[in-house]
Amino acid sequence: MSLPDAIDLSHHLSQSSRKRGVSPLKGLQKYYGKPGLISLAGGLPSPEYFPFNVVSSEVLPKDHFPLKSSDKTTGLTWLRRILGFRNRGSTVAIPKYPKVQGDISLSTDLQYSLARGSPQLEGFTYNFSARVHKPAYKNFATMIDIGNTDGWFKAVTILCEPGQGILTSEWAYTTAIATIRPYGIEPVSVAMDGQGMRDDALRSVLSTWDEIERGMPRPHVLYIVPIGQNPTGVTMGLERKKAIYDVCVEFDVIIVEDDPYYFLQEGEYLPPQERSRKQEDHDDNDVEHFLSQLAPSFLRVDYQGRVIRLDSFSKTFAPGSRLGWCTCNPLFAERIERQSEISTQAPCGFSQSIIASLLLNWKFDGYIRWLRGVREQYTHRRDFFVDCLAERFDLIPSTSTEGIWSGSKVYIAYRTCNSPSNVKSTKLSSESQPLFSFVPPTSGMFTWLQMHFEHHPLFPSHGSKALETKLWIALAEAGLLIGPGSMFASEGKVQLRSDVGHFRISFSNAELVDLEKAVDIFASVLQTFHEA
Amino acid sequence: MSLPDAIDLSHHLSQSSRKRGVSPLKGLQKYYGKPGLISLAGGLPSPEYFPFNVVSSEVLPKDHFPLKSSDKTTGLTWLRRILGFRNRGSTVAIPKYPKVQGDISLSTDLQYSLARGSPQLEGFTYNFSARVHKPAYKNFATMIDIGNTDGWFKAVTILCEPGQGILTSEWAYTTAIATIRPYGIEPVSVAMDGQGMRDDALRSVLSTWDEIERGMPRPHVLYIVPIGQNPTGVTMGLERKKAIYDVCVEFDVIIVEDDPYYFLQEGEYLPPQERSRKQEDHDDNDVEHFLSQLAPSFLRVDYQGRVIRLDSFSKTFAPGSRLGWCTCNPLFAERIERQSEISTQAPCGFSQSIIASLLLNWKFDGYIRWLRGVREQYTHRRDFFVDCLAERFDLIPSTSTEGIWSGSKVYIAYRTCNSPSNVKSTKLSSESQPLFSFVPPTSGMFTWLQMHFEHHPLFPSHGSKALETKLWIALAEAGLLIGPGSMFASEGKVQLRSDVGHFRISFSNAELVDLEKAVDIFASVLQTFHEA
Repeated sequence: MSLPDAIDLSHHLSQSSRKRGVSPLKGLQKYYGKPGLISLAGGLPSPEYFPFNVVSSEVLPKDHFPLKSSDKTTGLTWLRRILGFRNRGSTVAIPKYPKVQGDISLSTDLQYSLARGSPQLEGFTYNFSARVHKPAYKNFATMIDIGNTDGWFKAVTILCEPGQGILTSEWAYTTAIATIRPYGIEPVSVAMDGQGMRDDALRSVLSTWDEIERGMPRPHVLYIVPIGQNPTGVTMGLERKKAIYDVCVEFDVIIVEDDPYYFLQEGEYLPPQERSRKQEDHDDNDVEHFLSQLAPSFLRVDYQGRVIRLDSFSKTFAPGSRLGWCTCNPLFAERIERQSEISTQAPCGFSQSIIASLLLNWKFDGYIRWLRGVREQYTHRRDFFVDCLAERFDLIPSTSTEGIWSGSKVYIAYRTCNSPSNVKSTKLSSESQPLFSFVPPTSGMFTWLQMHFEHHPLFPSHGSKALETKLWIALAEAGLLIGPGSMFASEGKVQLRSDVGHFRISFSNAELVDLEKAVDIFASVLQTFHEA
Repeated sequence: MSLPDAIDLSHHLSQSSRKRGVSPLKGLQKYYGKPGLISLAGGLPSPEYFPFNVVSSEVLPKDHFPLKSSDKTTGLTWLRRILGFRNRGSTVAIPKYPKVQGDISLSTDLQYSLARGSPQLEGFTYNFSARVHKPAYKNFATMIDIGNTDGWFKAVTILCEPGQGILTSEWAYTTAIATIRPYGIEPVSVAMDGQGMRDDALRSVLSTWDEIERGMPRPHVLYIVPIGQNPTGVTMGLERKKAIYDVCVEFDVIIVEDDPYYFLQEGEYLPPQERSRKQEDHDDNDVEHFLSQLAPSFLRVDYQGRVIRLDSFSKTFAPGSRLGWCTCNPLFAERIERQSEISTQAPCGFSQSIIASLLLNWKFDGYIRWLRGVREQYTHRRDFFVDCLAERFDLIPSTSTEGIWSGSKVYIAYRTCNSPSNVKSTKLSSESQPLFSFVPPTSGMFTWLQMHFEHHPLFPSHGSKALETKLWIALAEAGLLIGPGSMFASEGKVQLRSDVGHFRISFSNAELVDLEKAVDIFASVLQTFHEA
């Protein structure tokens, strides 16, 4: 079946983006391919004067992390550090002048170069998006950017005007909101459930939009982190994406899919005793099987080209690479490229040459193998962190029917009785009050806790927001810094339920021993807090 | 004498910049220094999963380029390339985990990090600005950015609103203009002479500003490339800067000084026969003497903190480093930092770690030595290119009293008689018509040619702009690409004199043999062109 081309979405472009012409120097480029052409047009320094003869990096092997992690593997961080240099890694080296023309070189990558990224990196990401995300239209393009924050800023710049609104989940990534607000672009909150944004809620917001009452036109852009959502950790499946997409077609909305945690799809949390039952991973080489297990991108249902997908190397290689890419229709890609030319210019050449060399060396299958290893590491971290909570609290499973965890298996945490083991029984729980509840995330880096304040002695006088802050300060004073939930309320106001507070806890970065210590601090501060 | 602090310039901030608060996560930072604090607040990946154990670069020695270049040195490019790897260079290597805490490391630089740049790089650039540019106020700050295009874009973002104007030279850098126009910010042209923007012209524009007639308020921002101006190549001395600055104080204007060519101050062009008279360079180690010879920055006269100076590593190390820094008052620096946090985030970590390692290795004096070597290389290129013109044309020196070369020594080029040597004589010149004229640049990368079209047979019917384009196309078709002058007209309209056209020719990048070939093509196409 042949796929359609993207439809014409040019009416979504902002005033400034429409006015942004092809840079005058670009007009000269039709001559660039001419054999033997001498160009004295650009203000380029001579690569002779780049002081770098070679840049190289000793890199870990693609299968450095096992596909089935044991506690030992990840626990022995200090040992790995010491032995780090003895790993059977390899070296990627980029010379100033390549032996073979067209090979990655410093004379090219450290020179002024294309805003859309190096040809090698653009080629790799194009192929990657095609094979992994499989857009439902034909003429998509990929453009290297300098990370998803940059990608989001540029998407807003080419699409939005001051005085407009952008649809977001009710809980949303603070930096994404901080990007738009100063320009007079307001987040418009849409209710969530256990899969993230609800399509019925989205339809309701759009179909009942009253321009006068809301003080702005009906939003035409939607921002979403669909996998391991920041801050709630929830993940959206294909059916929900299809439903959201259909609403966006109906109301002519552009979707910006910010998906940095795509490859951290850790799967369902199982308590330790059940974990051995977990199905063994397939054959190491079965790339297609691995990809088929992942919740697909919005691109998979994007038959009109109305999705701008943001992928990043920040979570899979390193944030300091400042490299990511967007996949979108060719019109938007071209406008983003023009926007890059007058701001960020080309991505960093050191980064492009090192990352591209590594990827060309590993090839598609090798990079997938690396991603699977990294996913396994984060899965182990997620398991370890939830295990720690299960050790310090009594966790009673329950099924929620309302709010952001509607339809999910929720754990309600109670103060543990000093019994030798944290046996769960409904009898025990009924004797005390719930402290917090959460759904172990199936993707990403965050655990989102709903804190129960309704039985706190100060609740009637202070309310939940003040108690959240009070508890947050008590934790910080005791040596544990976590994200206060109110910070992530997309419209800046306290959400529906007034008897709860929230915290976002990241299990992605700390040493495991510190994760354990953190849960100890949390348990002890929480006890004192409720006794106060 | 103790210097003053910057005055309050907060009324210059744009609406969006005023509204941009401290990012919510920043509020958590007061706890960051707390010893033993466990932070599970940020969405940081674990550096364990960065696949890079070490990044290293083999670098040229700081004194790789001699301080007195001979023709042979630069001509033998191919030989240097072959021998490149045998140069007595050194290697900078950045480990993932440093042996000494606080040393440059990949675990820090490849992690999410400060938008203002790494502490090492910020420290180096602060010290550099203090010693080299010597701001005339006390509390200046430096901020790493990702090159001057990024710095300019951010300066515009924090200072300007749509519907405002920005003061520029009558000829200006196209990308800087392309940055502002789509936002409805218009360039306001100020006349130039041989030192660039004229202070009397600036005062005249500002003092006679008619908001109704111009359709916008009096501009409060001035954009300037003061050294090796792009495109005209002219350089502004201290007295003129002082005069411009005083006008800016009087009319409350912020100066954005975009100065990438600062260290390419090549000095006066001397014909080959006079060149041996050129004063020998001072002692290699006399850093202060070298610095004292350079035209100072606007910062030197900036006693109020109204200059945002943009420095770049693009022309001194490599454009692909995507690193530069701005020096300005602490209020503007903080606003630029906030702007970076929601767009570019931190500069690339590969670049920061490599460049900072090199700079800390070379230290201040070593970097200055490198800059002097590079300056010498570009001086040689400038000399070589002008020598080529002198060989293909008869160049008659003259002193201009009007227009952008007022006060400069101008060479007027005539068709050469097939005499054995290009002896200059006024007798010879009077027999033919001038083809073009130029002032050999004393800084930067560009030669700006004024093309004389008044005697061209098509001039009466076509005018100079059409002839400029016609000639430009003829040159491109013959294999020589140069910058058409009309592209650099800041207000987009043909300038004062209608009998001339312009070209910008860059001598910075091509192999010397190609520079020579380029002048051959130029001479031959020009001959045919005028015969047509």
